[in-house]
Amino acid sequence: MTDRLVLANQKIVLKETTLSRLAAVSTATVSLILLKSGIRACHISGAMPLVIEGCEFVAEAFTLRFIPMREDLSVPEVLGDPEYAQRKLIEEVGEGHALVIDARGVTDVGTIGGILGIRLTDRGVKAIVSDGAMRDVRDLREGTLPVYCTGPAAPASLHAHYSSDYQNPISCGNTAVIPGDIVMGDQDGVILIPRAMANDVADAAFEQERLERFVRKLIEKDGRPALGTYPPNEAVQLEYQEWLAAGEPE
Amino acid sequence: MTDRLVLANQKIVLKETTLSRLAAVSTATVSLILLKSGIRACHISGAMPLVIEGCEFVAEAFTLRFIPMREDLSVPEVLGDPEYAQRKLIEEVGEGHALVIDARGVTDVGTIGGILGIRLTDRGVKAIVSDGAMRDVRDLREGTLPVYCTGPAAPASLHAHYSSDYQNPISCGNTAVIPGDIVMGDQDGVILIPRAMANDVADAAFEQERLERFVRKLIEKDGRPALGTYPPNEAVQLEYQEWLAAGEPE
Amino acid sequence: MTDRLVLANQKIVLKETTLSRLAAVSTATVSLILLKSGIRACHISGAMPLVIEGCEFVAEAFTLRFIPMREDLSVPEVLGDPEYAQRKLIEEVGEGHALVIDARGVTDVGTIGGILGIRLTDRGVKAIVSDGAMRDVRDLREGTLPVYCTGPAAPASLHAHYSSDYQNPISCGNTAVIPGDIVMGDQDGVILIPRAMANDVADAAFEQERLERFVRKLIEKDGRPALGTYPPNEAVQLEYQEWLAAGEPE
Amino acid sequence: MTDRLVLANQKIVLKETTLSRLAAVSTATVSLILLKSGIRACHISGAMPLVIEGCEFVAEAFTLRFIPMREDLSVPEVLGDPEYAQRKLIEEVGEGHALVIDARGVTDVGTIGGILGIRLTDRGVKAIVSDGAMRDVRDLREGTLPVYCTGPAAPASLHAHYSSDYQNPISCGNTAVIPGDIVMGDQDGVILIPRAMANDVADAAFEQERLERFVRKLIEKDGRPALGTYPPNEAVQLEYQEWLAAGEPE
Amino acid sequence: MTDRLVLANQKIVLKETTLSRLAAVSTATVSLILLKSGIRACHISGAMPLVIEGCEFVAEAFTLRFIPMREDLSVPEVLGDPEYAQRKLIEEVGEGHALVIDARGVTDVGTIGGILGIRLTDRGVKAIVSDGAMRDVRDLREGTLPVYCTGPAAPASLHAHYSSDYQNPISCGNTAVIPGDIVMGDQDGVILIPRAMANDVADAAFEQERLERFVRKLIEKDGRPALGTYPPNEAVQLEYQEWLAAGEPE
Amino acid sequence: MTDRLVLANQKIVLKETTLSRLAAVSTATVSLILLKSGIRACHISGAMPLVIEGCEFVAEAFTLRFIPMREDLSVPEVLGDPEYAQRKLIEEVGEGHALVIDARGVTDVGTIGGILGIRLTDRGVKAIVSDGAMRDVRDLREGTLPVYCTGPAAPASLHAHYSSDYQNPISCGNTAVIPGDIVMGDQDGVILIPRAMANDVADAAFEQERLERFVRKLIEKDGRPALGTYPPNEAVQLEYQEWLAAGEPE
Repeated sequence: MTDRLVLANQKIVLKETTLSRLAAVSTATVSLILLKSGIRACHISGAMPLVIEGCEFVAEAFTLRFIPMREDLSVPEVLGDPEYAQRKLIEEVGEGHALVIDARGVTDVGTIGGILGIRLTDRGVKAIVSDGAMRDVRDLREGTLPVYCTGPAAPASLHAHYSSDYQNPISCGNTAVIPGDIVMGDQDGVILIPRAMANDVADAAFEQERLERFVRKLIEKDGRPALGTYPPNEAVQLEYQEWLAAGEPE
Repeated sequence: MTDRLVLANQKIVLKETTLSRLAAVSTATVSLILLKSGIRACHISGAMPLVIEGCEFVAEAFTLRFIPMREDLSVPEVLGDPEYAQRKLIEEVGEGHALVIDARGVTDVGTIGGILGIRLTDRGVKAIVSDGAMRDVRDLREGTLPVYCTGPAAPASLHAHYSSDYQNPISCGNTAVIPGDIVMGDQDGVILIPRAMANDVADAAFEQERLERFVRKLIEKDGRPALGTYPPNEAVQLEYQEWLAAGEPE
Repeated sequence: MTDRLVLANQKIVLKETTLSRLAAVSTATVSLILLKSGIRACHISGAMPLVIEGCEFVAEAFTLRFIPMREDLSVPEVLGDPEYAQRKLIEEVGEGHALVIDARGVTDVGTIGGILGIRLTDRGVKAIVSDGAMRDVRDLREGTLPVYCTGPAAPASLHAHYSSDYQNPISCGNTAVIPGDIVMGDQDGVILIPRAMANDVADAAFEQERLERFVRKLIEKDGRPALGTYPPNEAVQLEYQEWLAAGEPE
Repeated sequence: MTDRLVLANQKIVLKETTLSRLAAVSTATVSLILLKSGIRACHISGAMPLVIEGCEFVAEAFTLRFIPMREDLSVPEVLGDPEYAQRKLIEEVGEGHALVIDARGVTDVGTIGGILGIRLTDRGVKAIVSDGAMRDVRDLREGTLPVYCTGPAAPASLHAHYSSDYQNPISCGNTAVIPGDIVMGDQDGVILIPRAMANDVADAAFEQERLERFVRKLIEKDGRPALGTYPPNEAVQLEYQEWLAAGEPE
Repeated sequence: MTDRLVLANQKIVLKETTLSRLAAVSTATVSLILLKSGIRACHISGAMPLVIEGCEFVAEAFTLRFIPMREDLSVPEVLGDPEYAQRKLIEEVGEGHALVIDARGVTDVGTIGGILGIRLTDRGVKAIVSDGAMRDVRDLREGTLPVYCTGPAAPASLHAHYSSDYQNPISCGNTAVIPGDIVMGDQDGVILIPRAMANDVADAAFEQERLERFVRKLIEKDGRPALGTYPPNEAVQLEYQEWLAAGEPE
Repeated sequence: MTDRLVLANQKIVLKETTLSRLAAVSTATVSLILLKSGIRACHISGAMPLVIEGCEFVAEAFTLRFIPMREDLSVPEVLGDPEYAQRKLIEEVGEGHALVIDARGVTDVGTIGGILGIRLTDRGVKAIVSDGAMRDVRDLREGTLPVYCTGPAAPASLHAHYSSDYQNPISCGNTAVIPGDIVMGDQDGVILIPRAMANDVADAAFEQERLERFVRKLIEKDGRPALGTYPPNEAVQLEYQEWLAAGEPE
């Protein structure tokens, strides 16, 4: 039975511009818009890019959940079981997805390694995100898939985990992630956007970055003080309207 | 779709003596038997009895899972939603169950309070176990239901959680709990026994405690050294066999 | 210069009934009302009563702040310095205050001991609250003053702290406390109520507990299910209105 | 080869009055004297009495060290090996010793249980102190031996540890303990006194408590302010000298 | 009212050579001198350079303090309030200052982002130091200002903080920082030097590094053993004096 | 008296091919083989390479242990004491060793700095591994010796430690390390191999990597799904046998 939060997300249609607008802004901007929209709980704590260069992504969350290792469950044989969640999902996750992994913050084992990384790239996945570690990071660093995690660890997930299921609500980095929610990442880490808010957040973030380009020009080139300029007071707001009316030069 | 680990547990039949034999032994003894059976991961970390007097229980696990609070999900209105997991399960959990709650180790909010505690007692539940806190502990302490948790906290679960589902595999106190597994508690805390191992563990633990009663007599009354006596060397094993043959006096 | 948040608090007048209504309800109830009012951040994490019996209190916060020990600052001689914050405040804190101490969560040193506890009792203080430890707890446990902390620790505060100032905004148990805010404690720990919200929260909590007495009767005595009863659906709301109209029997 | 710090301790002779004077004062007082003597690192973090009543003790440290579990080392069979440290030491530790256990702060396994507790009591041990947990705590709570630990845990030490050696320098609760050092405990927990300082510390603590009895009288009975009285200024010092000259009444 | 520790610092005059001598040595050397001077508490825990290249700095501490987020305080509107501490200080901090931020070790929100970083660079600030995270790190990494923090995080400070005040004593990375104290950073992180000790520490560190250059030559080029050479025994001390007399060649 | 676990390790002879085969495989592969051999506890938690380039090593463990700082023990003078463990071992550790340091996970002080790093390189040491920090990391990063640690920290070990002994069993990164055990490191961190298992593990890991090269070819070049291919099902096993028979092309 599909989770009702998942069902609810499936009914929400994204506007055509939503993902591209999000791709044009930063996670810092989006998190500020989320704050203004009443959402503080949006940061995937602990997930940092293995490689900074080219780490940016926006995608829909496809979730995987691990529960703690138990010696009777976490046996090497499960890796060959076609129903084992960590393996089965690899052939189900697809284009436009970010694989978001609830590793319960465990930094001592890697949940995805080099070979699965290759297959996930082949499957069209846009990023891997976890609040735990990754293994074979030499290979992952050489690949093109953005990988966000707490860092490297050689042991396989079975050393400390058992993958119980996928495409259910999870916790990742102390943030709730429902399949279908939007996740995006850049040098500042990964941010979660509730799917129901994604359209509005994308538009507001797009506008916010336009304003910040103007503010930055005032501060960086004109040497304006931060107070009054960022955020802009009424006078600066007027200047901004004029600048907009004149057409953003850049 | 019911989880396959849950289905597997449902097929396992407990022997008539299993629960009563477990009720006659301590969690310390059971965990030693589990160690000898290859299981180290059996301790529900952080779950201690609110009241020591009368805290002992053995029961089948009925699980509840919380994911992190998100401002758009964890709204007070869900408490009146008949499908909200934390409320819906109260009328499904029943006789012989221990309600085992994955609170992700959060000690700042209580997941069950006084009124739900009363209803759970009415429903025939044998214990509440969580790796998080409880609220209204004055009431819970006055009740008869054993409650194991990290301690008290006034805020409701919605301050930090959203209950996503129940009767699925969970993590509780860094231990995997599958619905139908056996949990038992006493002054030393709560231990998890994989259902498939419960019959054998119960028998072995029962025998181990008989041996320990004999060993304790030797050490406490006869002043024997610990070395050689506990665990018993060959000579003491022989004495034990004689003692058994003579019929345990106690 | 007095902090502007402190000044703002000083201008807020409490209604005559506010403190007495809060004294009649539980921290669990108050935290639920705060949640409904948009406040999740209200729990003084780690502060539990040294003695459960008689731990209840409601008071205005009087704050003390510690910064980390530095060998050139945290010398025993400061204890005799009349300007040293930890000692000077003892003669300024007074009737109706709870002394709320920012100990940065350090559990290895005690910030108040037996002799200061006696003097604080004499001064009319209603409670001591800290996110750190207390020392001379034998004496504190024998006294009448409610003391909330992380537990005992023998070393004096100077082993790990320097008291920098008092009556400024602090962090206590990961919650912001402004002098003049209301703090209240019971078996579930300590809750912070922003002073500007105290009047409304007190009224709403008072009403909420009346409702809960009714709900509890339905569940405890009449065996009603939790669903629909708590929180009450429309039908139960009607019953409640009738019960209220008939005059609460208790 | 005996460790050189241990050898150095063995050469230090305690004065006849040292242990009895320490037994007459509190850990809070002793830690203050240690602070004045330049020692801040003296608190065995995490070790609290299982039973408050009768927990006081002063003894020489006899140390036991655990390293992390490794599946090839921490096998149940070692419990029957006469050379296994955790068992061998039981017959070597003796009168006047406190068994101080380096459990690396692990709270999920118990390092001493009921049967060993009985034997240690028989051997004349004065206390058990650990920065980890204990098992069979029902039995330990019923015994007469003071036990200081982080709390109960059912699993045996082998679930998470291997005992590598005893009577070597250890870390216990983030404090260095050398065999022969003095440890003492009361409701405020356990304090370590370097053996070389024990004679002086005992004398100074004894004198400090006499002064505090006088100061407490001034504050408790005469309502004196804390400032000037505790610590005493020059005038109060004079009063104290007179009080001493008159003979302490108590 | 300015804090008395701040006032005391303001009266301490630095020698002309102090800052330049500190700029010529490493934090490792300075911390060793501080240890020899009785100061162990000098390390700003968690603050590491965002960019290693060019991270070195020496400056006077200008402090900013955050207390925990409270929903009624941490509203986006405060960013436009000219009295809000985090914004007001930007126009007060100046040449020769390092902005040292007490972020209570929170790694999930950034306290300074790209635009404020530009303005701080304009103001002549020499470094930003925090025990929490930074946002817009792409911009900060491209800037010239050394930034020390726990790493990146997209959310703004208001997600988790409220800035209560500046230029008061703070805790940063578990170390007390008084405005006017000297902070310095390099690849090993950030070290705090109490202002009153800065002149002496600078001189001793300068001398220590001269000695270490000599010692390193003996070990690296002459293959001397570490024992006896580092630290130098009497014979090596004599060699050093001769080397000094001959004039340091480098 | 040498520890008996150390003596046992000394009797175990490594095959000629063992170290070279381990040098040819990854820590990820080795940890999987250890898992299949019943060892989950093999990861030196927290030890990551200071410099990724050239960090690979395989070596025998030479251990150093630190206990917590105590002001009477951790005095600068010990650095000149020829018997002080941290200095004495430098001239005893040698070719083929990795210096493995139990720093109790303390990230605030560095246990090895630039000058000792030079001497250790001279002594033929193959790597330094610690669960704590290092100092003078500018120098260490410029050297050729692989250094694995939690990161940089300026203060010397004496700020927080005292080195009690070397070549005894230790905990490093929550893993037991016996002198003579094999440690190996690469981008995924450091793995411990019990000496008694090293020969078998090396052979199995060597074979596993050959299989993985084949599997990777199938997935990367032929676009095979992960399921069935990794781990290989019966059909893929047959293909592999043919590939092997044909002679690995690479």
